[in-house]
Amino acid sequence: MNHQAVEALTLLQGQIEMLKLLPRTGWLQRGLRDVESVAEHSFGVAALALVVGDLYPDLDRGRVLAMAIVHDMAEALIGDLPASASRLLGKAAKYEAERRAMLELFGRLPRGAEYVALWEEYSQAASKEARLVKALDRLEMLAQALAYERAGASGLTEFWEERNGWGEEFPEVRALTEWLFAEHERMRREA
Amino acid sequence: MNHQAVEALTLLQGQIEMLKLLPRTGWLQRGLRDVESVAEHSFGVAALALVVGDLYPDLDRGRVLAMAIVHDMAEALIGDLPASASRLLGKAAKYEAERRAMLELFGRLPRGAEYVALWEEYSQAASKEARLVKALDRLEMLAQALAYERAGASGLTEFWEERNGWGEEFPEVRALTEWLFAEHERMRREA
Amino acid sequence: MNHQAVEALTLLQGQIEMLKLLPRTGWLQRGLRDVESVAEHSFGVAALALVVGDLYPDLDRGRVLAMAIVHDMAEALIGDLPASASRLLGKAAKYEAERRAMLELFGRLPRGAEYVALWEEYSQAASKEARLVKALDRLEMLAQALAYERAGASGLTEFWEERNGWGEEFPEVRALTEWLFAEHERMRREA
Amino acid sequence: MNHQAVEALTLLQGQIEMLKLLPRTGWLQRGLRDVESVAEHSFGVAALALVVGDLYPDLDRGRVLAMAIVHDMAEALIGDLPASASRLLGKAAKYEAERRAMLELFGRLPRGAEYVALWEEYSQAASKEARLVKALDRLEMLAQALAYERAGASGLTEFWEERNGWGEEFPEVRALTEWLFAEHERMRREA
Amino acid sequence: MNHQAVEALTLLQGQIEMLKLLPRTGWLQRGLRDVESVAEHSFGVAALALVVGDLYPDLDRGRVLAMAIVHDMAEALIGDLPASASRLLGKAAKYEAERRAMLELFGRLPRGAEYVALWEEYSQAASKEARLVKALDRLEMLAQALAYERAGASGLTEFWEERNGWGEEFPEVRALTEWLFAEHERMRREA
Amino acid sequence: MNHQAVEALTLLQGQIEMLKLLPRTGWLQRGLRDVESVAEHSFGVAALALVVGDLYPDLDRGRVLAMAIVHDMAEALIGDLPASASRLLGKAAKYEAERRAMLELFGRLPRGAEYVALWEEYSQAASKEARLVKALDRLEMLAQALAYERAGASGLTEFWEERNGWGEEFPEVRALTEWLFAEHERMRREA
Repeated sequence: MNHQAVEALTLLQGQIEMLKLLPRTGWLQRGLRDVESVAEHSFGVAALALVVGDLYPDLDRGRVLAMAIVHDMAEALIGDLPASASRLLGKAAKYEAERRAMLELFGRLPRGAEYVALWEEYSQAASKEARLVKALDRLEMLAQALAYERAGASGLTEFWEERNGWGEEFPEVRALTEWLFAEHERMRREA
Repeated sequence: MNHQAVEALTLLQGQIEMLKLLPRTGWLQRGLRDVESVAEHSFGVAALALVVGDLYPDLDRGRVLAMAIVHDMAEALIGDLPASASRLLGKAAKYEAERRAMLELFGRLPRGAEYVALWEEYSQAASKEARLVKALDRLEMLAQALAYERAGASGLTEFWEERNGWGEEFPEVRALTEWLFAEHERMRREA
Repeated sequence: MNHQAVEALTLLQGQIEMLKLLPRTGWLQRGLRDVESVAEHSFGVAALALVVGDLYPDLDRGRVLAMAIVHDMAEALIGDLPASASRLLGKAAKYEAERRAMLELFGRLPRGAEYVALWEEYSQAASKEARLVKALDRLEMLAQALAYERAGASGLTEFWEERNGWGEEFPEVRALTEWLFAEHERMRREA
Repeated sequence: MNHQAVEALTLLQGQIEMLKLLPRTGWLQRGLRDVESVAEHSFGVAALALVVGDLYPDLDRGRVLAMAIVHDMAEALIGDLPASASRLLGKAAKYEAERRAMLELFGRLPRGAEYVALWEEYSQAASKEARLVKALDRLEMLAQALAYERAGASGLTEFWEERNGWGEEFPEVRALTEWLFAEHERMRREA
Repeated sequence: MNHQAVEALTLLQGQIEMLKLLPRTGWLQRGLRDVESVAEHSFGVAALALVVGDLYPDLDRGRVLAMAIVHDMAEALIGDLPASASRLLGKAAKYEAERRAMLELFGRLPRGAEYVALWEEYSQAASKEARLVKALDRLEMLAQALAYERAGASGLTEFWEERNGWGEEFPEVRALTEWLFAEHERMRREA
Repeated sequence: MNHQAVEALTLLQGQIEMLKLLPRTGWLQRGLRDVESVAEHSFGVAALALVVGDLYPDLDRGRVLAMAIVHDMAEALIGDLPASASRLLGKAAKYEAERRAMLELFGRLPRGAEYVALWEEYSQAASKEARLVKALDRLEMLAQALAYERAGASGLTEFWEERNGWGEEFPEVRALTEWLFAEHERMRREA
């Protein structure tokens, strides 16, 4: 490994630290304090990607996990833009900035182009692996919403408004989603 | 006040809450945890704007304070973009998104157009009031950097690299900046 | 600006930092952790003072905003005394200590006497401006109570016990208060 | 135990919760975030009171520990007043408010008068037990200052300015204090 | 006091600091963030041990308070093992590790053997004092559960499943427990 | 996927949440507050495992990443035992409890035995993949130590005492470690 690659890796380590510190703004906008970091969410997605992805023998585990790990990495440079920011900036501008961020983060690593390509594949839902990680990204968020409701949050109703469109391609994700909806209902009834 | 204005005001209250929860990402990128919120920073700028602004009899206090209060309000919808995000998005795209955010936040208030205009004036440093609030925005950040160094942070050296260009138009801001640099030096020597 | 004024300003900056760190004890006494700081509350009051105050053409914006900014500044030296402390210390002793704190904080600034006078005017509700800021101080607290309830808190019922006596002089404050009560009721029904 | 005593105990439990949430303002005034609570400090004093107090066979362990446990309990109602607040309120007013708080907290308990008397004894350093707990209250604060310096704080120099007047009556407290000063020096040299 | 004892005391001070930082894992496993520390819980138990223990004239206050103060001290070296850890490690292995931790913490103090013996007495519920502190350890946890529910937590139902077996030997603890259950019910009804 | 597998997956999701909340006790024992969670550390290890592991064409990416993701998962049930706990419990008891935890967490998943086997392989450093993840586990901790020192911590010297024994098998890990040591030295000189 040459000097440039070592330097690129050390810079990447610094960005990993940033992801540990960056709170997920979606929760802040619902009034929650002391919320999960982007790194914590990404770990959750990666862990689900391992155990759920392994249920599908036709998927490549290495590709699935790599995608889960890099899927939010651009946020180290851009921050975790809330939905309102995406709307105000426009989808294209956001995508382009994220792509530049991925190039900046990974571009000088030996296999850097591959990580940027994996992120593009994910962003465009361009493969079964990408669609699974996208479904798990949403599932992990829903599981976290349930956890915050258990810890008391009551301003998260909009997360439970759309019951369809969850993982049609992946019955296991669908089953997990249904369990979360059912648990959410059970908690509401008991409250 | 009509119904629409009440609704606009209640939405604004929700955004104020968001600014209390949103951490200033610049500090996170330097590895600090549990940092000040955008609301805390904005209060600091407003307090400085009061006591420093009042030293200049030719400035309108009401305009200065209004500018200080709204100067970061777009962040309620966009988040606190770190410097790297501004670079990757481009200045124009960022400015345009912020302007849309200001319109969304204030547009339906009776005097909403005035607040958006104040923010534009600030963003473009288009008046003496705007330039003072900009100088105090930077001064407040430097004072916070010093406070974090007192609390232990050591990764903030870049904040102290540029000693010039601080408030030439405002000798009082210059004097306060010099005091912060001197205090920073004193702490370094004693460490 | 002479040396004494610079020194007074630097001391004031240190006190602003303290207000960022000082939690509002009223929330702690209701069992909430990780609550807003005095600086965050003060920012909320100042932001409301701008947009609500501007609805009243007979009010001086500069005076209203200055009052909002300084209204809790004595807490930098005294702390945020809970209601029980005020009762145990006595109103006169508390007022006198706060007045001394204001003198200590602002006394050596060029226009320091004016800030102390503004604070006295506020404390005694001695003008329409002062009464508006007092009404907004209470409104901001109620909006925060609602936000904590949305995030899950259930021990804040006493905040909603007194529906009258809110801003008779200011119909807009009254309308906002009623909206908060209605929203509180809606959340309770849905829970 | 009658109904009144049960009620008094349940109220006391609520105040214990408050002490868990109340940060020690002295640290906040030095710019530290996320600091120890009054309950944590009180636990530290009680633990030291056990192991240090037991070195003195002429002291009554039950009285020493009771004093350590109640010494800051009035803060549940008054808050943790910083040194500047004591100065601005006056020592007599503060003492009187704390005495009233102790009566309110303990007055209706079967042995309540005894706890109030223990607190008065402590406040006035009126016995060897009281002087030991006072010395340990200060020692615990110094140990915490050292811990914060180890975690990075650099604005705590004033804690180390007065090397004398520590525990002349108690050579063991003196020895522990000297160890803390030596450790502080060692850390400074190595930094 | 010889050199060895001073050193043992300074090490103990460091462990007290650790107990201030160590969160109670039981709450984390129920999804709560920013929870009480072991030191805060221990303070709560000690405070209850004082006021409840004093209701029993046949109990030795010094022994009761010493037990309350040391009952969780082994956690400074072992951490706060959740119930699942105790199950997976086995009760005997956990007890033995805790006993070794107590020896390490207190072994070289002049009266160290006594503290270890007090902890053993507590662990084995081998005396009326030990059984009272055990009952208060549980009561304090229940009071904290109620406080978290007031602050919004809803995932703590299992704490309220077993209404019997609380302090049969101590009617006062029983009365306080019943009050907590009643208050919990009242809150549920009002929610 | 049968019902049992869905249930096993939902339980696993709950444990992922626990890993987000569980602080790394090693940092707490050095006096740091508000430290990274186990989930954040695991994300860091997984991200390094991706970019560093990919430098070795003979390693299986899927196996490396799976190992990185599961390597600390037993802590969801056991907690993050500090080094002192491992010593007091004994290595064998700790290993056995962790193995039981892994069985409990993964045992009922379709490919559960494979995850347990991967964890055993990791624990025993029984393959090149396992040794790389172990080296990266240590590297990630060192990078975090450096980050905490940048944020101010000064009690982490023991992390920098052993310069050898880092990744002899993996020159890239060695190069990254050397960079961290060099950076640590640079910061010390400049302080």
